[in-house]
Amino acid sequence: MSVPTNNPSMEFEKLDELVQLSPFHQWLGVRLQALSKDGVELLMPWRSEFVSVAGIGYTHGGILAALIDIAGDYAIAAHLGHGVPTVDMRVDYHRPAMPGPLLAKAAAIKLGRTLCTAEARIHDEAGLLVASGRGVYLNRR
Amino acid sequence: MSVPTNNPSMEFEKLDELVQLSPFHQWLGVRLQALSKDGVELLMPWRSEFVSVAGIGYTHGGILAALIDIAGDYAIAAHLGHGVPTVDMRVDYHRPAMPGPLLAKAAAIKLGRTLCTAEARIHDEAGLLVASGRGVYLNRR
Amino acid sequence: MSVPTNNPSMEFEKLDELVQLSPFHQWLGVRLQALSKDGVELLMPWRSEFVSVAGIGYTHGGILAALIDIAGDYAIAAHLGHGVPTVDMRVDYHRPAMPGPLLAKAAAIKLGRTLCTAEARIHDEAGLLVASGRGVYLNRR
Amino acid sequence: MSVPTNNPSMEFEKLDELVQLSPFHQWLGVRLQALSKDGVELLMPWRSEFVSVAGIGYTHGGILAALIDIAGDYAIAAHLGHGVPTVDMRVDYHRPAMPGPLLAKAAAIKLGRTLCTAEARIHDEAGLLVASGRGVYLNRR
Repeated sequence: MSVPTNNPSMEFEKLDELVQLSPFHQWLGVRLQALSKDGVELLMPWRSEFVSVAGIGYTHGGILAALIDIAGDYAIAAHLGHGVPTVDMRVDYHRPAMPGPLLAKAAAIKLGRTLCTAEARIHDEAGLLVASGRGVYLNRR
Repeated sequence: MSVPTNNPSMEFEKLDELVQLSPFHQWLGVRLQALSKDGVELLMPWRSEFVSVAGIGYTHGGILAALIDIAGDYAIAAHLGHGVPTVDMRVDYHRPAMPGPLLAKAAAIKLGRTLCTAEARIHDEAGLLVASGRGVYLNRR
Repeated sequence: MSVPTNNPSMEFEKLDELVQLSPFHQWLGVRLQALSKDGVELLMPWRSEFVSVAGIGYTHGGILAALIDIAGDYAIAAHLGHGVPTVDMRVDYHRPAMPGPLLAKAAAIKLGRTLCTAEARIHDEAGLLVASGRGVYLNRR
Repeated sequence: MSVPTNNPSMEFEKLDELVQLSPFHQWLGVRLQALSKDGVELLMPWRSEFVSVAGIGYTHGGILAALIDIAGDYAIAAHLGHGVPTVDMRVDYHRPAMPGPLLAKAAAIKLGRTLCTAEARIHDEAGLLVASGRGVYLNRR
């Protein structure tokens, strides 16, 4: 349902480099997985610090919120050629995310001169939807 | 503006223990700072992995989102006596959070039989508001 | 990107009747336009009371918020067979909605035993995206 | 918990005039009730078109969403001297709003050069919280 149908302006390697510039992204281990006119896909491996409750093992909602924010940001960056500060964000949690890599898919909904909007979904290894959300980003240099 | 005016049902030390049970909270370094009928205060020290953009140094929005989620959760837990899964969450970013400890204040807005709502604000060392938000939590055992 | 791929459990005429049971929906003039496994489409004609600012003429954001809420609700109802109370909702405004009919498309993202999530988009006559959003609904009888 | 502590820049009568300039606000019957450094209060009488489900009688969530949006907008306008377009908005529903006037209280959380944030709460005649939320508004002329 994404509205901007134009191709991204950035190349895969340049965008992946941009993703990895951030120390927090490096700690998360987030990497660009796919880039197309449908949006971006980011892969995040699991690490034990993500665990929400000891002994249960699912990933903390704060980590999922971070991944939604990041995925939306790079769905916009793919078009603008640079990262964008987040104005605000919403996350909906659908299922516990058990240990294992997570895949976030995000697409731009609106690319405005001042504000941009993106939506994102996170799936687990089995393809189940664990969280989804959207963010608004400020388009400024 | 908090609506539930009854005192929290948990003692400070029990709630602080609950906060620290989570491996992710341990990594963040989040500790309970205050507990009263006005809500909870959580203190989070800074760590270099929080940095959003190398060389600039402000804390990543994903970390702030996690702190909003956690603060709202324990504002509810203080009344219910146990942690609650997050249904959904919203975060608004107001200012870059430069390196240094952050203080999150949160209060319950509504304590329902099925759903609870809390709001939270994050201030930096200078007392400036860096982010605010709210979350809905599922009241079930 | 909708996850539940099963067919709706309600027939078009039954769901349209359900939409029109509400006095507020009657005042808005909202009617079911399409129903499929991809979700629902609702058509809302324009009326002069919708105007936000006299002399400019675009539709008030509160009307667009109502339409997002309604569309999401019936995207869920199409699967459950009954309307659902809204837990919370988010709306993003993308463009002024000038006088004329608006088309809202909505789809269920998650159908849970307790909570359901839907997303919705509103387009104007020219097909431009004027607003989008999502809501969480309580699945109870 | 409002952060901007400076007094509003608009007088009560001027702001009430601004509220009533909108045909949609006139239809809702919204009037300014109070204006202070703590924010604004708006009173909205009940009308039968607000009803969500015939025979039950509570007010539709879309009407409550509109009131949250409006209250937040004028909490900002009171400081800026002019109305502001809504960027996005979130509403949480806490209780059914039975027939009767509703009082919305709103306050600015952040007044930025580009973006402003406000939060709002709606109470019924008995003083019960029926809905709450927040919105982001664009500060431009």
